[in-house]
Amino acid sequence: MDRKAYRLADIVARFGGRVEGDADTTVNQIATLDSAGAQHIAFLANSKYRKQLDSTGAGAVIVGEADADATPRPRIVCANPYSYFARLSAFLNPLPAFEASVHPSAVIGEGAEIGTGVHIGAHVAIGAGARIGIGSVIMEGCSVGANTSLGANTRLYPRVVVYHDCVLGDNVIAHSGAVIGSDGFGMAWEDGRWLKIPQIGRAIIGNDVEIGANTTIDRGALDDTVIEDDVKLDNQIQVAHNVRIGAHTAIAGCVGIAGSTTIGRYCRIGGSAGILGHLSIADGVEISSFTLVGKSIREKGVYSGIYPFSEKDSWLKNAVHLRHLDDMVGRIKTLEKELEALKRRD
Amino acid sequence: MDRKAYRLADIVARFGGRVEGDADTTVNQIATLDSAGAQHIAFLANSKYRKQLDSTGAGAVIVGEADADATPRPRIVCANPYSYFARLSAFLNPLPAFEASVHPSAVIGEGAEIGTGVHIGAHVAIGAGARIGIGSVIMEGCSVGANTSLGANTRLYPRVVVYHDCVLGDNVIAHSGAVIGSDGFGMAWEDGRWLKIPQIGRAIIGNDVEIGANTTIDRGALDDTVIEDDVKLDNQIQVAHNVRIGAHTAIAGCVGIAGSTTIGRYCRIGGSAGILGHLSIADGVEISSFTLVGKSIREKGVYSGIYPFSEKDSWLKNAVHLRHLDDMVGRIKTLEKELEALKRRD
Amino acid sequence: MDRKAYRLADIVARFGGRVEGDADTTVNQIATLDSAGAQHIAFLANSKYRKQLDSTGAGAVIVGEADADATPRPRIVCANPYSYFARLSAFLNPLPAFEASVHPSAVIGEGAEIGTGVHIGAHVAIGAGARIGIGSVIMEGCSVGANTSLGANTRLYPRVVVYHDCVLGDNVIAHSGAVIGSDGFGMAWEDGRWLKIPQIGRAIIGNDVEIGANTTIDRGALDDTVIEDDVKLDNQIQVAHNVRIGAHTAIAGCVGIAGSTTIGRYCRIGGSAGILGHLSIADGVEISSFTLVGKSIREKGVYSGIYPFSEKDSWLKNAVHLRHLDDMVGRIKTLEKELEALKRRD
Repeated sequence: MDRKAYRLADIVARFGGRVEGDADTTVNQIATLDSAGAQHIAFLANSKYRKQLDSTGAGAVIVGEADADATPRPRIVCANPYSYFARLSAFLNPLPAFEASVHPSAVIGEGAEIGTGVHIGAHVAIGAGARIGIGSVIMEGCSVGANTSLGANTRLYPRVVVYHDCVLGDNVIAHSGAVIGSDGFGMAWEDGRWLKIPQIGRAIIGNDVEIGANTTIDRGALDDTVIEDDVKLDNQIQVAHNVRIGAHTAIAGCVGIAGSTTIGRYCRIGGSAGILGHLSIADGVEISSFTLVGKSIREKGVYSGIYPFSEKDSWLKNAVHLRHLDDMVGRIKTLEKELEALKRRD
Repeated sequence: MDRKAYRLADIVARFGGRVEGDADTTVNQIATLDSAGAQHIAFLANSKYRKQLDSTGAGAVIVGEADADATPRPRIVCANPYSYFARLSAFLNPLPAFEASVHPSAVIGEGAEIGTGVHIGAHVAIGAGARIGIGSVIMEGCSVGANTSLGANTRLYPRVVVYHDCVLGDNVIAHSGAVIGSDGFGMAWEDGRWLKIPQIGRAIIGNDVEIGANTTIDRGALDDTVIEDDVKLDNQIQVAHNVRIGAHTAIAGCVGIAGSTTIGRYCRIGGSAGILGHLSIADGVEISSFTLVGKSIREKGVYSGIYPFSEKDSWLKNAVHLRHLDDMVGRIKTLEKELEALKRRD
Repeated sequence: MDRKAYRLADIVARFGGRVEGDADTTVNQIATLDSAGAQHIAFLANSKYRKQLDSTGAGAVIVGEADADATPRPRIVCANPYSYFARLSAFLNPLPAFEASVHPSAVIGEGAEIGTGVHIGAHVAIGAGARIGIGSVIMEGCSVGANTSLGANTRLYPRVVVYHDCVLGDNVIAHSGAVIGSDGFGMAWEDGRWLKIPQIGRAIIGNDVEIGANTTIDRGALDDTVIEDDVKLDNQIQVAHNVRIGAHTAIAGCVGIAGSTTIGRYCRIGGSAGILGHLSIADGVEISSFTLVGKSIREKGVYSGIYPFSEKDSWLKNAVHLRHLDDMVGRIKTLEKELEALKRRD
């Protein structure tokens, strides 16, 4: 594929920053410092990797002010090289255009409203009364339930399912296999059997939310499950019924969030972490990977709880004492008392 | 949407319990105490939240005998308010009716038997020789493999896959993205490569089982994987080959169960827990979230094993010693011996 | 179903090993020692279960040299009974044949190349410019993105999604709900919001790879995500962008691997384990279930880090001290010093 090339001068005209070195240098793609060639522009997001500037084959680089003179190579100097890279990459790698069309194999329910410019792919099912906002793209095999509403420029990758009566905002991206609005896990115990509790709340997804592949977001039991604007969810996350996730929070893969928990805004949650139900997590909380949060967190901060790994023999030798910690503490107390007695006797 | 309203007197005539206060009060929907309005009936499942009765805007409430006089509001008094709520909610929120029909885009294999009253949605594929029991609903995009059998009134939400030669009972519910009967993870190591072991067992799902979104249940390697009646599985659970789960057991989201493990009846397993392979878990066992069960459990009871979380600095300071617990125990022993020697010397 | 029966003599003629006892004994299926009947051949993979040979109802058994005389039953003696069983089972249980055909409901993009002998099922979508290698089977409801290439004899079970521009080798098996090539979780923080970073790398899957149900493999951010030959991935595994997994590595269910981590060849990773990002794991490393790997592993070996479970009361009593381990160590140090002082004084 022949890619269009751009002069550094043209790039700063569009995205800001300034050029040091030859402003007529052309690049046609972004690459890492490690793998870049002469036709590529690479970026240095963190000064501590400055040494990689010496060995890169990149035709040009994006650097911050602190590294403005760290290389003689043609370069764009800007305030935030990482977001500069993100913007430039989006410009160089536009999403494929989807024509405004409804594939003949798609099935559109009665009364559904399809906005202008919408693309609906093969084997899609849109339920009765659903609304698809202008410019949205529903790729092949998706299912949008009855009376569900999608905002503008929302994009469902192949085989996404959104149940009935849910709401997705503008610019939402949902990756393949994501399920939004499935029944929460609610049942009552009666006479030795489970009795299903109807899940009549909705799943409400704000604007600019991204939902990873095979992530599941249950609808509410009575009230709604709510994902606020600009929340970013990685793959295989489980969001139970009546959870609320505050705006701008980012959650890594495989996290499980139990029912009715509220997570604040601007939080960052590491992969495979878990949060129990009916808890409240403050704004700006950071939770480490693999940490189970078993009570509410009222203060912004970083929280962890991981058992450290080691060679199995060493782990076995040490872990066996975890079942006797209380006994150890008792022995220390006894020693302290007896030593005190001895000292007093002297 | 205009909802039909019911008098409290009519509700107790149908579901039992007794009315205190104005039996002509009408309600048209269930709600939580927090969000209920005058047209709603709320419920108090746990006396410790009794205070919420004072502030609720609910037109009526469901309470237990212990709370019969805890509010002057019109109320239904019954033995188990939570299951009463479940039954009433199911009555007020009936599942949408699906007409008995096979969508023209569905593909039905040779010799498949479709029971009376069955609904088969768009883009469904039913394999040769499959049997779909009366009144079952197979929503859009599902795949039912060859010779697989579904009981009566079973409901597959969009994009469920059931592999060939499996058996699902009556009143089973499977949510979107669930995969039933996929190959177990079986292979033999030979001459420096893996050799696949054919997975020729089946997945057998009992009556009244609910299976959450994106949950996976592998077929057996030689014998079958079995999920007994009234088992409830939340989202994103992994059930490996030849697992057996006893009747009435409920398992929360993201749990992983390794191969050939047997779980008893009436168990409750918390979210993100794990159970290793070839184990046996007794009836009535409760396992906390995030707990790894590494050996069989012979006695009913509650079992836990979670590393507690804390602020990261505190966690770091403490966790570093986990790799030296054995050394700590040795030092305590030495202290005990030396102190004993000192005491004896005196 | 009438199954074809084979004489033990015929089996060893095809697969090697030798018969002890009546070589005219016929069998038509593999079974476990526990459930086998007279028409079955069972196998003893591990001498420590030798006692089961006494009670099995199997018509014949497969044993290793060490167990050649452990039963009078007709038997095949061979070097590796487990792989012998795998090969024999594959012979007795051939995969159903799929005819070379493209279902009329499938949608094939412009310029896609479909190899000879390929089966494309109902409701499949193949993107423009995609290539499907000879003999491959794409079952109902799969989606293969534009310009993606699949090798020969590759098999996608129903509802697999492969995004655009990815590469799968020969003899790959992907189970239902697997998603390959979805966007990695990449974004830059700018002015109080997230900015999406285009994920322009690919997902490259080698030959003989098996991918479990609902497993997700993200495409690379700039460079590619790479799964080498003969890697075996169980269900619900999450592989983040730019991960590389070395040949012959096997990973059990529910494992999460964060971005840019490299895992060596011949590794074995237990269920629900996690590996943080930007790490390097050596060849031949074994990681226990539920273990979080938080730093690189340079040496072959077995690594663990699991908090042991116990009855909840006992766990509570002990776990409370984990937040005070550092204090415990301080108290031990103080005791040691004071005891030393006392001893010196005497």
